[in-house]
Amino acid sequence: MLVNGSAHRTVWSAAEGETVQIIDQSKLPWSFEIEDLRCVSEVATAISEMHVRGAGCIGATAGYGMWLAAKKARGSDERLLELAHELIATRPTASNLKWAVERQLTKLRASPVDRWVAVAKQEAESIADEDAAWCQRIGEHGCQLIREIASQKPPGEPVHILTHCNAGWLAFTDWGSATAPIYAAHRAGIPVHVWVDETRPRNQGARLTAWELMNEKVPHTVIVDNAGGHLMQHGMVDLVMTGTDRTTYTGDVANKIGTYLKALAAHDNGIPFYVALPSSTFDWKMRDGIREIPIEERGGSEVSLMDGLAEDGSIQKVALVNPGSPTANHAFDVTPARLVTGLITERGICAASEDGISRLYPPHERAPQ
Amino acid sequence: MLVNGSAHRTVWSAAEGETVQIIDQSKLPWSFEIEDLRCVSEVATAISEMHVRGAGCIGATAGYGMWLAAKKARGSDERLLELAHELIATRPTASNLKWAVERQLTKLRASPVDRWVAVAKQEAESIADEDAAWCQRIGEHGCQLIREIASQKPPGEPVHILTHCNAGWLAFTDWGSATAPIYAAHRAGIPVHVWVDETRPRNQGARLTAWELMNEKVPHTVIVDNAGGHLMQHGMVDLVMTGTDRTTYTGDVANKIGTYLKALAAHDNGIPFYVALPSSTFDWKMRDGIREIPIEERGGSEVSLMDGLAEDGSIQKVALVNPGSPTANHAFDVTPARLVTGLITERGICAASEDGISRLYPPHERAPQ
Repeated sequence: MLVNGSAHRTVWSAAEGETVQIIDQSKLPWSFEIEDLRCVSEVATAISEMHVRGAGCIGATAGYGMWLAAKKARGSDERLLELAHELIATRPTASNLKWAVERQLTKLRASPVDRWVAVAKQEAESIADEDAAWCQRIGEHGCQLIREIASQKPPGEPVHILTHCNAGWLAFTDWGSATAPIYAAHRAGIPVHVWVDETRPRNQGARLTAWELMNEKVPHTVIVDNAGGHLMQHGMVDLVMTGTDRTTYTGDVANKIGTYLKALAAHDNGIPFYVALPSSTFDWKMRDGIREIPIEERGGSEVSLMDGLAEDGSIQKVALVNPGSPTANHAFDVTPARLVTGLITERGICAASEDGISRLYPPHERAPQ
Repeated sequence: MLVNGSAHRTVWSAAEGETVQIIDQSKLPWSFEIEDLRCVSEVATAISEMHVRGAGCIGATAGYGMWLAAKKARGSDERLLELAHELIATRPTASNLKWAVERQLTKLRASPVDRWVAVAKQEAESIADEDAAWCQRIGEHGCQLIREIASQKPPGEPVHILTHCNAGWLAFTDWGSATAPIYAAHRAGIPVHVWVDETRPRNQGARLTAWELMNEKVPHTVIVDNAGGHLMQHGMVDLVMTGTDRTTYTGDVANKIGTYLKALAAHDNGIPFYVALPSSTFDWKMRDGIREIPIEERGGSEVSLMDGLAEDGSIQKVALVNPGSPTANHAFDVTPARLVTGLITERGICAASEDGISRLYPPHERAPQ
């Protein structure tokens, strides 16, 4: 997608061919910096310190990391495995990370050692390209949905879409999941306007989604997470679209904390609530999302402290909460399938139900987990 | 209520009898400062710059302001009226402000001019005392509710109450509305724990409610506004209790933006959702809250900028939102009566319906508006 008018991905191999390059997302939106990763440990640090984040983006970065590992291992299977473990250990719960590393290991072990570097690079490009292609297809399917809504509105009237957190291209290699239909619609000339939830406590909406949309020149407005219900009551939202961190095969959706509240408001106001996801996000073993999906509790300082851009241009961390008051920080919640109008996947749109999902993804076609 | 172990109100006349004193709420929770107001213009500034805020607290402060006005007017009706208008002009939409000033004017005009100062002081104390007494009664009625919930839990298990914004004693002269039942229950030895919504964009929950509860030693935890739905899904909330800025005679509740989302989540999880209010908050003319109650749109910088306590102890303002992205800031929303389990008033608890409200407040007993 566009950054200052030029097309970018979140991760790629440098033109000179020796390093991996990423957008350092920890610096956004205050500054746009491209970071060179020259060895596996730099890739590991970039992942663990969240210079890259988001399932697809982490997976692709780990894929490129294995290219650097293949160079470093110089044909030693033992060394390759050590480096693979170094990458996997950076974020133990990121399933795409493990998946990408293991995909590379399988590929390399089936290849002659003198071809490792070339094979690993090719495979890294494939992982990144496939991620982008799936997101692009999600965009095409979701764009149809936006087009239909637009056709029911007066000509030129924008379709108002509310989104929560960042399920944007920064979380993948390109396009994003929830944002892909928006970018596709905007590029197709369908007028859209996006309400961007700031998404406390880490403000991924206000920082990353808003930055993405600004760079793609998509009209948007940042709001506090409290505002969506009021907007929906007053006919100011036509469609809610979010991403997901994990979706059960029955259609329950785990996503950033607060998603459930928006789904309730959409339901109460008869507004469609769609969740966009590549099928790799399905959990084919989990039936009851609310009971079974473990919800990460993160440090309370993410609630009580906030960094932002001070007037002098420096990044300052300030306390927002009464000193002495405890805080709690549940990072995700689960939206039950009954509140989800549909799922937008790379194969098309389906109902958020076991039946609907099975029609697009019959059990025998599901990737093993 | 207690501050550092000593009982305080939000506004009072100084012991020496010459000035009005307030807690400067604009400094909370970072520092506790008592401010002396020596003349009407200082009272006006304190109101307009939100050193005092909240309907009851503004009304009481204006009442005391009219005592200073009575001194300054020296028997001139014209001068008294000028000063009264100076007070009313500070926050044009605060109905308690106008009400308190007009109550004082009526009283003074029925009194001999040489008694004005004494009469105005007496009336100011009455306005403040009545506000506190109403809130205390709300506390007694609401405490029964908490006691009933506690009786259905294992002994010693706290009643978990979620609240939004600050409907605490800082918004009145004492006790508060939504907090009054909590303080009453806590003082009666019923174990309670409060989930405090931070309440973006102005964070009155994280700043004021949390500060109040800490000083009264009520166990509490500050959470982001996104978290409440997840807590309710997992049985971690027994009761939701909020205040209101305006409630229609049919039971529709206008309150700080985001209240509606919590009401939806409470309804979806079978958790009681109560709204506490002195009856002065009822709008006896308005039937349909969502269609009729005007919702204030405030400046977008309240969303994009945030002040907080920096590490060096100074108050710093930082940007939280992608520079270049527009923001919107709707300050209130309306929770329809169908989502409100009941209203806790100074006369008791009633259903949030025209019928329920009429039983406690028959039309002929309603204050004219």
